[in-house]
Amino acid sequence: MGEQVNILGFAGSLRKGSYNKALLRAASELVPASAKLDIFDLEGIPPFNQDLEAAMPDRVKAFKQKIKSADAILLVTPEHNYSIPGIFKNAIDWASRPYGDNSFDGKPVAIMSASTGLLGGARAQYHLRQVLVFLNCYPLNRPEVFVMTAASKVDAGGRLTDEDTRKRIYQLLEALVVWTKKLSAA
Amino acid sequence: MGEQVNILGFAGSLRKGSYNKALLRAASELVPASAKLDIFDLEGIPPFNQDLEAAMPDRVKAFKQKIKSADAILLVTPEHNYSIPGIFKNAIDWASRPYGDNSFDGKPVAIMSASTGLLGGARAQYHLRQVLVFLNCYPLNRPEVFVMTAASKVDAGGRLTDEDTRKRIYQLLEALVVWTKKLSAA
Amino acid sequence: MGEQVNILGFAGSLRKGSYNKALLRAASELVPASAKLDIFDLEGIPPFNQDLEAAMPDRVKAFKQKIKSADAILLVTPEHNYSIPGIFKNAIDWASRPYGDNSFDGKPVAIMSASTGLLGGARAQYHLRQVLVFLNCYPLNRPEVFVMTAASKVDAGGRLTDEDTRKRIYQLLEALVVWTKKLSAA
Amino acid sequence: MGEQVNILGFAGSLRKGSYNKALLRAASELVPASAKLDIFDLEGIPPFNQDLEAAMPDRVKAFKQKIKSADAILLVTPEHNYSIPGIFKNAIDWASRPYGDNSFDGKPVAIMSASTGLLGGARAQYHLRQVLVFLNCYPLNRPEVFVMTAASKVDAGGRLTDEDTRKRIYQLLEALVVWTKKLSAA
Repeated sequence: MGEQVNILGFAGSLRKGSYNKALLRAASELVPASAKLDIFDLEGIPPFNQDLEAAMPDRVKAFKQKIKSADAILLVTPEHNYSIPGIFKNAIDWASRPYGDNSFDGKPVAIMSASTGLLGGARAQYHLRQVLVFLNCYPLNRPEVFVMTAASKVDAGGRLTDEDTRKRIYQLLEALVVWTKKLSAA
Repeated sequence: MGEQVNILGFAGSLRKGSYNKALLRAASELVPASAKLDIFDLEGIPPFNQDLEAAMPDRVKAFKQKIKSADAILLVTPEHNYSIPGIFKNAIDWASRPYGDNSFDGKPVAIMSASTGLLGGARAQYHLRQVLVFLNCYPLNRPEVFVMTAASKVDAGGRLTDEDTRKRIYQLLEALVVWTKKLSAA
Repeated sequence: MGEQVNILGFAGSLRKGSYNKALLRAASELVPASAKLDIFDLEGIPPFNQDLEAAMPDRVKAFKQKIKSADAILLVTPEHNYSIPGIFKNAIDWASRPYGDNSFDGKPVAIMSASTGLLGGARAQYHLRQVLVFLNCYPLNRPEVFVMTAASKVDAGGRLTDEDTRKRIYQLLEALVVWTKKLSAA
Repeated sequence: MGEQVNILGFAGSLRKGSYNKALLRAASELVPASAKLDIFDLEGIPPFNQDLEAAMPDRVKAFKQKIKSADAILLVTPEHNYSIPGIFKNAIDWASRPYGDNSFDGKPVAIMSASTGLLGGARAQYHLRQVLVFLNCYPLNRPEVFVMTAASKVDAGGRLTDEDTRKRIYQLLEALVVWTKKLSAA
């Protein structure tokens, strides 16, 4: 780990106006000076097919490389049908493969989610936490960032304007930096 | 509902030699005379993007139509990273959209899963059950079909040879037929 | 089933001022004319011990009898530590025993929950739904009743005063009656 | 933390012949020299009632004190009705209270489970992991110890005789010691 904690963030939506992408952009503005945040866009990750592992698509190779070189991961997940969006899980499935080359192995992780509903993506987050057990990641317990009624917190230009949410994202990033250093130092 | 219960089955894998596809093929051999089983292959379903809903891909339209015209659904899920495979969830996400046109609404559902490990896909099944709450489906409680150590139960030609598993799949299909008639009659 | 649908409700708290008990009392006022709601208090149910099954405590026997004689069940669950309260699960564990005498077998079920936080008990509800698979119950998918910030919706006398919540509880009970009749008729 | 890692273990069963208690006894024999394992019996923990928090029962006070003074926690959970046993969750609920005095705060945790069935308590373990998020614990990701068909692995005297299981319990304890030292050193 260099002087700065190198965080890789990605959001589980391909939609241009995604609220979760807005959260991730806000995170890139709010990242503490002791860290930097690199964003990876899941556009171009094809449907996972184990038969293609031997000739892994370039976009997947790039994704795996970015994850491996990061000190910590920021997962930003919408909630679709009370769980993780398929396209988000699909990217994770690729990056966990092939067998013996799980790119997420041992990474500290922070999670946030936004939804237009009242639960703010909570159901997706707890499913994601179960996935992280297999991936052998170390997720933060706190703070949990559930952004409810997201449509009222992001302006027409896609900027997260809600100050309380911005503050909580900052706290999440701060906690991730501390947690990453703690796990790295030991 | 016609004289026969019309079941649509699909498996959450694109791999040619998939054990879960083998389960689904076995189900098509084992389906009771009071029902028929139609199989849909998820190949060609692209990554979900809400921006594309207005011009939904033909393959997705066909999938949605198949689901809607079925009396009951048979879900066959691998387990990836302790949850539903991304490509399986992605197909479900498409079929649940656009808002107000959830193709799964009100369908009776049976679930089975295979894995090479000892838990037989159980973790994926319970996540899937949470998804079914949102989709407003009616899953069977029993029998639960978890096919452990699947590599030992499918032969080189992709045929499910384990007699006990074949019997349980038959029981699952029988139960699905009874459940579908019960929900339809009322 | 008689002319009226006979619902048994119980709440997972022993606290006198419990918000979940307030929800249950409101339900008893709101129950449609086509049903009646009987309330069972979990006070006096001792910690489950399988060694005591042969001489089951009287309070447990009474609880099991009430469940068996009901046409439908209304579960009202607080959320403790992101899951079902121990005392609520303990009562369910007793009523599911001994082996072969699960009192909940085949019952239609409605669920509601209240919490002082922002998620309204959602995490407890989804764990409870997994329990209901084993118990072979048939839970309603909708409406889901999560009562957030419950302290602001119950007055000093323990009456649920929030009109929107009262309306949703009424809708839940109506849906339970329809669902119970549907499952019973078939 | 002293020279030895001080682990507190407790099992979620009151039954004398409990397989999970047998696992815990085996753990006390297998604990590495760098640690010691203290066992707490949940007998005598009454049903949680928030109204009693101000005059907490002595047995609960003793339980909380044991947890607080431990460097790490070993949770041994049966699975009842596809989730955590009520009496196990009840003990956790007590120890997490009153507000601001969560005895589990910040503890490293290892989990194991036994069942007579084929899934070995897995469903209970994943619910327990969600509880640990709220409790702000740090559970090991690996190894996961699911003891299937436990009746065949414990002898008439209550001794865990299965060598493979004993080896995995040893590995779990070793991993817990390493994890506890890592979190403590940082």
